[in-house]
Amino acid sequence: MASSVKKPWGGRFREDTDRLVEEFTESVSFDQRLALHDLRQDLAHLEALKRAGVVTEEEAERIARGLSEIEAEIREGRFVFRAELEDVHMNIEAALREKIGPLAGKLHTGRSRNDQVATDFRLYLRDEIREILRLLHDLRRALVEKAREGLEIILPGFTHLQHAQPVLLAHHLLAYYEMFRRDADRFQDTLRRTAECPLGSAALAGTPYPLDRELTARLLGFERPSRNSMDAVSDRDFVLEFLFDAAVTMMHLSRLAEEIVLWMSPEFGFVDLPDALCTGSSIMPQKKNPDVAELLRGKCGRVYGNLLALLTVMKGLPLTYNRDLQEDKEPAFDTADTLRASLKVAALLVRGLSPRAERMRAAAEEGHPTATDLADYLVMKGLPFREAHEVTGRIVAFAEERGLKLWKIPLEDLRRFSDLIEEDVYEWLSVEGSVARRRTYGGTAPERVREALAQAEEELSAEELP
Amino acid sequence: MASSVKKPWGGRFREDTDRLVEEFTESVSFDQRLALHDLRQDLAHLEALKRAGVVTEEEAERIARGLSEIEAEIREGRFVFRAELEDVHMNIEAALREKIGPLAGKLHTGRSRNDQVATDFRLYLRDEIREILRLLHDLRRALVEKAREGLEIILPGFTHLQHAQPVLLAHHLLAYYEMFRRDADRFQDTLRRTAECPLGSAALAGTPYPLDRELTARLLGFERPSRNSMDAVSDRDFVLEFLFDAAVTMMHLSRLAEEIVLWMSPEFGFVDLPDALCTGSSIMPQKKNPDVAELLRGKCGRVYGNLLALLTVMKGLPLTYNRDLQEDKEPAFDTADTLRASLKVAALLVRGLSPRAERMRAAAEEGHPTATDLADYLVMKGLPFREAHEVTGRIVAFAEERGLKLWKIPLEDLRRFSDLIEEDVYEWLSVEGSVARRRTYGGTAPERVREALAQAEEELSAEELP
Amino acid sequence: MASSVKKPWGGRFREDTDRLVEEFTESVSFDQRLALHDLRQDLAHLEALKRAGVVTEEEAERIARGLSEIEAEIREGRFVFRAELEDVHMNIEAALREKIGPLAGKLHTGRSRNDQVATDFRLYLRDEIREILRLLHDLRRALVEKAREGLEIILPGFTHLQHAQPVLLAHHLLAYYEMFRRDADRFQDTLRRTAECPLGSAALAGTPYPLDRELTARLLGFERPSRNSMDAVSDRDFVLEFLFDAAVTMMHLSRLAEEIVLWMSPEFGFVDLPDALCTGSSIMPQKKNPDVAELLRGKCGRVYGNLLALLTVMKGLPLTYNRDLQEDKEPAFDTADTLRASLKVAALLVRGLSPRAERMRAAAEEGHPTATDLADYLVMKGLPFREAHEVTGRIVAFAEERGLKLWKIPLEDLRRFSDLIEEDVYEWLSVEGSVARRRTYGGTAPERVREALAQAEEELSAEELP
Amino acid sequence: MASSVKKPWGGRFREDTDRLVEEFTESVSFDQRLALHDLRQDLAHLEALKRAGVVTEEEAERIARGLSEIEAEIREGRFVFRAELEDVHMNIEAALREKIGPLAGKLHTGRSRNDQVATDFRLYLRDEIREILRLLHDLRRALVEKAREGLEIILPGFTHLQHAQPVLLAHHLLAYYEMFRRDADRFQDTLRRTAECPLGSAALAGTPYPLDRELTARLLGFERPSRNSMDAVSDRDFVLEFLFDAAVTMMHLSRLAEEIVLWMSPEFGFVDLPDALCTGSSIMPQKKNPDVAELLRGKCGRVYGNLLALLTVMKGLPLTYNRDLQEDKEPAFDTADTLRASLKVAALLVRGLSPRAERMRAAAEEGHPTATDLADYLVMKGLPFREAHEVTGRIVAFAEERGLKLWKIPLEDLRRFSDLIEEDVYEWLSVEGSVARRRTYGGTAPERVREALAQAEEELSAEELP
Repeated sequence: MASSVKKPWGGRFREDTDRLVEEFTESVSFDQRLALHDLRQDLAHLEALKRAGVVTEEEAERIARGLSEIEAEIREGRFVFRAELEDVHMNIEAALREKIGPLAGKLHTGRSRNDQVATDFRLYLRDEIREILRLLHDLRRALVEKAREGLEIILPGFTHLQHAQPVLLAHHLLAYYEMFRRDADRFQDTLRRTAECPLGSAALAGTPYPLDRELTARLLGFERPSRNSMDAVSDRDFVLEFLFDAAVTMMHLSRLAEEIVLWMSPEFGFVDLPDALCTGSSIMPQKKNPDVAELLRGKCGRVYGNLLALLTVMKGLPLTYNRDLQEDKEPAFDTADTLRASLKVAALLVRGLSPRAERMRAAAEEGHPTATDLADYLVMKGLPFREAHEVTGRIVAFAEERGLKLWKIPLEDLRRFSDLIEEDVYEWLSVEGSVARRRTYGGTAPERVREALAQAEEELSAEELP
Repeated sequence: MASSVKKPWGGRFREDTDRLVEEFTESVSFDQRLALHDLRQDLAHLEALKRAGVVTEEEAERIARGLSEIEAEIREGRFVFRAELEDVHMNIEAALREKIGPLAGKLHTGRSRNDQVATDFRLYLRDEIREILRLLHDLRRALVEKAREGLEIILPGFTHLQHAQPVLLAHHLLAYYEMFRRDADRFQDTLRRTAECPLGSAALAGTPYPLDRELTARLLGFERPSRNSMDAVSDRDFVLEFLFDAAVTMMHLSRLAEEIVLWMSPEFGFVDLPDALCTGSSIMPQKKNPDVAELLRGKCGRVYGNLLALLTVMKGLPLTYNRDLQEDKEPAFDTADTLRASLKVAALLVRGLSPRAERMRAAAEEGHPTATDLADYLVMKGLPFREAHEVTGRIVAFAEERGLKLWKIPLEDLRRFSDLIEEDVYEWLSVEGSVARRRTYGGTAPERVREALAQAEEELSAEELP
Repeated sequence: MASSVKKPWGGRFREDTDRLVEEFTESVSFDQRLALHDLRQDLAHLEALKRAGVVTEEEAERIARGLSEIEAEIREGRFVFRAELEDVHMNIEAALREKIGPLAGKLHTGRSRNDQVATDFRLYLRDEIREILRLLHDLRRALVEKAREGLEIILPGFTHLQHAQPVLLAHHLLAYYEMFRRDADRFQDTLRRTAECPLGSAALAGTPYPLDRELTARLLGFERPSRNSMDAVSDRDFVLEFLFDAAVTMMHLSRLAEEIVLWMSPEFGFVDLPDALCTGSSIMPQKKNPDVAELLRGKCGRVYGNLLALLTVMKGLPLTYNRDLQEDKEPAFDTADTLRASLKVAALLVRGLSPRAERMRAAAEEGHPTATDLADYLVMKGLPFREAHEVTGRIVAFAEERGLKLWKIPLEDLRRFSDLIEEDVYEWLSVEGSVARRRTYGGTAPERVREALAQAEEELSAEELP
Repeated sequence: MASSVKKPWGGRFREDTDRLVEEFTESVSFDQRLALHDLRQDLAHLEALKRAGVVTEEEAERIARGLSEIEAEIREGRFVFRAELEDVHMNIEAALREKIGPLAGKLHTGRSRNDQVATDFRLYLRDEIREILRLLHDLRRALVEKAREGLEIILPGFTHLQHAQPVLLAHHLLAYYEMFRRDADRFQDTLRRTAECPLGSAALAGTPYPLDRELTARLLGFERPSRNSMDAVSDRDFVLEFLFDAAVTMMHLSRLAEEIVLWMSPEFGFVDLPDALCTGSSIMPQKKNPDVAELLRGKCGRVYGNLLALLTVMKGLPLTYNRDLQEDKEPAFDTADTLRASLKVAALLVRGLSPRAERMRAAAEEGHPTATDLADYLVMKGLPFREAHEVTGRIVAFAEERGLKLWKIPLEDLRRFSDLIEEDVYEWLSVEGSVARRRTYGGTAPERVREALAQAEEELSAEELP
């Protein structure tokens, strides 16, 4: 069975489109999301057509009024998108024709759906990136606020999920600040690189109408028109870049989420979360699950998948536009939705974290976390580091056997391993001392962390969001 | 702002769930698709509860009646799913409670959403696999039908997109038959491996109620209950397997699609497609585009992406159920939808193909496609293959220079390259002769291809679809 | 600069190959790994050529002797592979020519590198699969042995990394047994599906020589010759299947590894590992890191990447052989190496695990793990499950506030929540009781786990490895 | 069996490392590639240690001499890397110890392998990026040179692999120029973002030694030290970024490669390549295969795989260093090697292309490529675009039926479709006219393409490579 709606390209066709084919190829079920961007573009293109003399002043006004009615219908949810009209562009054009008659056809002069969709999609992604930058800003702010609360809290710093050296909670949180700062930086680069407007490239070769591409680029908030019409309609590297930026951000979020899940476990017990940020079990009444963090971790997979999907689509496609490119939108939409929601709940989680300082502090004493300090002490007394490491290793083994913490080993026992050890060793063995000594730039010593925190706060205050 | 709906696990919670959290964690917007499978499971579980004495005969009847009403509402599209009830299971349970009161709560005895969703999802995937097997069967049938039409048509067989040796169109099409046969075989394996029923594993450890798991497995069409409750609720390898089977099938479809795109190009011109299976351009009135084939090729990316998404989710998750697993459904739903639609349009395309036999035949003569035959001729006359190859290479270079086809080179010229060449060489140089000589099992000689075709037809007739 | 070695296909070429091109296209640096499989194939093909009368008995003997010398050189590491000879096939052929002169050229009669490499690669993968099946068998054996040690040990079963219900360590380990059993099953399917021999498909169309493909298939350990020559030289779904089977197995290993890392952390402290299976830190003398488990987890990424690499390569390739297919080997080699090594160290880790039963047992009491049992108790007393869940939730909140375990709450306090509760509740609240009651098939009750263990042991004993 | 070599962390260990574990965990087989970067870092760190008073002037000289000897050994291939010493760092340290005794141990003061490898790896990647930028520059130059040759050549511009509108070959090639320009831009961003030096972060928390991190950063060519020690040792987003930049570049190369393969096919016959850039067949003597382009296309898969491998590794890792991170190097090494080789052969291919101008020109007339121009003509005469499109579609159908090109249809026939058509239509229907009219910025009109070419040439001349 075939559709009876007239296609915009029906002239040379003798048969109607197969219904199954229509369903398979339609995109309006998802690209309707670009409707408002399409209308913005229509207005810019209309201006260019008017200045080129393709439409008269009066025609332009009638078209603009029609577009404005359509915009109202869309904003109010009254606009009915129809699959048999294929895509958002044809839906809008058909609606315009219903309102103003054949004049509607003039709006498609000197433009193809190829440059039209490339322009809409850039407009869309640029809006999404701006929103994501705002959300990344807020998440970094949440980290900084929580870090300020954690300036006095010591917890074990882990490597290999083993206690390595004690660190400040603030220092730990600021590590994430750095990751999300780089993520934002990456999105900024993408925003800059997507500032080229494809409109005017037409199907693939440019157009004979004297359209002012500088003008339309500027009207739409781009910095300049794109430089090659064939490239403009056939590449999607800008979408890939967006997907990758999102994938890395989700990766960072998955690490944060993993730590929240770990820290919420009874074994760690490093933090608590408010009930409002947890869920329960339908069968086990005692459960308070960090579901939000788990999902945050899991949603990483979806975004990786979206990136791979489009990378696959693009591989080996000859120039210029191929219908495969229609598959660029859903991964981007899903990624933008996922990332926005993830950033929001991540900020909520960070703000909701209640550190259990005493559990952290107690844990920081487990596992001989100041062994490196003991080695450093021996170095200071003149032993080359490798030997100091060796001696300390033996002392740790001794401590393990006796079930002692390093700072509880009597001096005479310590001296059996090296007579360089003296009474002053004990101030090297304390957890606070260990933290305080790591004073190099970027280290966990309180003064360094305070400086880092101040810098981050200042950075946030100074940040101009696009 | 928080939701005021009562959560099934609300007992120990002091605060309502954050609205953002509710939106982030809900799954009913997509898992409502499992509603009918959930109801089937409810009935099986109800039977087990009845036999275990957990519900009375009369209670069971009331519950069953309630479920039956719900089923009707769902089938008729009257059931309203509510996001604040989290998932499909809780939506159905809440609806049941509205109908029959607290008795509804008994249905959840000895069952957790963990084993419930694992069971639903297997039921769903097994249904999808059965449908996919039917569609793969139909696509293979389409290929066999078209191959029968192509028993006399010769086209160039390509390697490196260069003409290699002439082949029958039927032989070419049957290559795809083989690919889709293996794809079906893979889905059959997955169907067999998913025949274990998780129901009765409860949250993770089994249940104290004496539920007959053999019974419920059988009632739901499984072969046996799963063997370990912790494994049953925490693994998703069966979904991955489904996604992979689909990814390989899409890969095969992408190859078929690529060939249709190539063959439809003006340069190849090997086939035509009915207008009903093509679309046009909004700007270029002459265009008749193989969009369907392009999209078929492009949709490969989406399915690869779905596979990667779930592989990522599963990596490194500790036992048993983690909320990350909720991310298993959307990739599977999207993959099933994509694959079903793709198989349908692929069969449509295959059936719609009009081979342009004369173009194919003419092309088959281009590029010295019988050069291997000439080398084989020389071997037959006693030259080791490598030398025969070398001599033939020189003859080809000679032909290229003169712009001749091999069979147009006069004998005396040929003999200047090797005096083993005699008059009988010309029957080795014809395209038909080349095809006819490739008589080994699996080769392109007409009698072999007829046998292969008969075998395929018989196979299809004998195939029992699940 | 160009190479001066004569190419096997030099006849029609006027210029030597560019050196850069030679380096870019050579494969012998990695496909030399197929040398012994190539020789096996040579012998089978030789037999077919002899029976077809292409080579005489005496020629066959000379060729076989030459091949045998080459085999010895390869086995003893004396054979020098040369990049300018492109691939392993041409290296062996050139070596044969050096030994026995132009007669060597006859061995390539009726065969192309296209079917040759497809055959070699299947031989190789089938050998790898057999070895992997042996290693999966051993890993399952290790799990079963360790499970037998853990028949009395109770640990918390986790969902959401929160304590859910107590389980036996043996039950937990047998969950992995099930995963690896399915993995083996998947590899068995792949072994069965790769049992078709491409040899005799020649370049793409079959060959005019009357080669007995049944014979060569049988000689090489395949079940039958492949059915379509074009399919045989151009598909790589069998490699994808191998890569996927490996990816799922690595995913399961990554989960096991994750648990070992968690359990080794000071916070969990559930297990210890011998020093021989851990490594230390170059700076922190106290560290004993579960590096092996971490790498095991990390190596999952590599195998996923290999799968996606080949999926990408295959997308949209037209028939038949294209040089892109050369990219099939390195991912498969790397995957086989990674998987074999991973399975070995996983078995080592499992055997090396020392459960710290008392830590596990103590943890199993944390977090109200018998709350579900309390709800079940209330159900048994007549409350519908949902209400029982609700009541229990309130009791848990009460226990949390007082810092009590459930079994320490006095009866009168319990009864304030529900007067259905009586003295007999306490036997429902104990951890041992909880485990013992989960008696459904597949549950964690000791008798069920003993049965499962016995079944696994029997299965392993009965398993015939290929 | 266990290794007898002393481990740098052996102090607390009672057992030797298992041999299998040693093999599984060693990285020196691949990270030896960082040896020279490690030595550069050693010298910078030595300077910092000297200024901090940790080593004396005289000790520093002895250490430097030892390092210098090691460097010579490495450069001359005399250095023997040993797997039982785990990694490149420990191999170098052990060699230094052999040369200068225990003093070697001092060099490890205030440094851990965690910050050491993060620094080495950045140094390495920054060098690779610089080389890649040079190669991208050269490839763009090759495109520009070839574009200059193609300023007069018209070929069909394709959409959907159907003829769309005629374009200049130069315009087509400059589309790739744009893609590779953006690729270079992306690598530049990554270079800028990797300009932070981790050295001095030590294991994870910083170090107590007063090391001047500004100094070491500067000595190693970084712009500044990294800001947070925990972030510095545990993130690998900079590697991911490199892998992604490479993946997009490979995607662009795969498109170029696809077009070369298509254009080399007998059906297209748009270009020829020198023999030196092609290879032949071992069985088919007539073949001249574009293997290089095919491999270029195929190698895309490998780089995608590498990106996804590391994305997978990073997902969900808690802070800080985990051994999983060791899996970051091989994907990056393989990607850098692949990309460098690919860029080189791509430039070779582009320079080697001989356009067959007459074939292209003839093709450009096929398929009614000026139908859009006809529609535009009608628009100019006053018809709204949609109606003009419709009329033109009917004329195209008429032309198809009669087997005519549009410009061969007699005027009276044309006028039957619209009486707006007059004699002047014929200048709109010519292929040259169509190209010439597309004069908007970025279009294919000769003057626009000349400007674009001049701009590209100027850009290349002005480009300062890092």
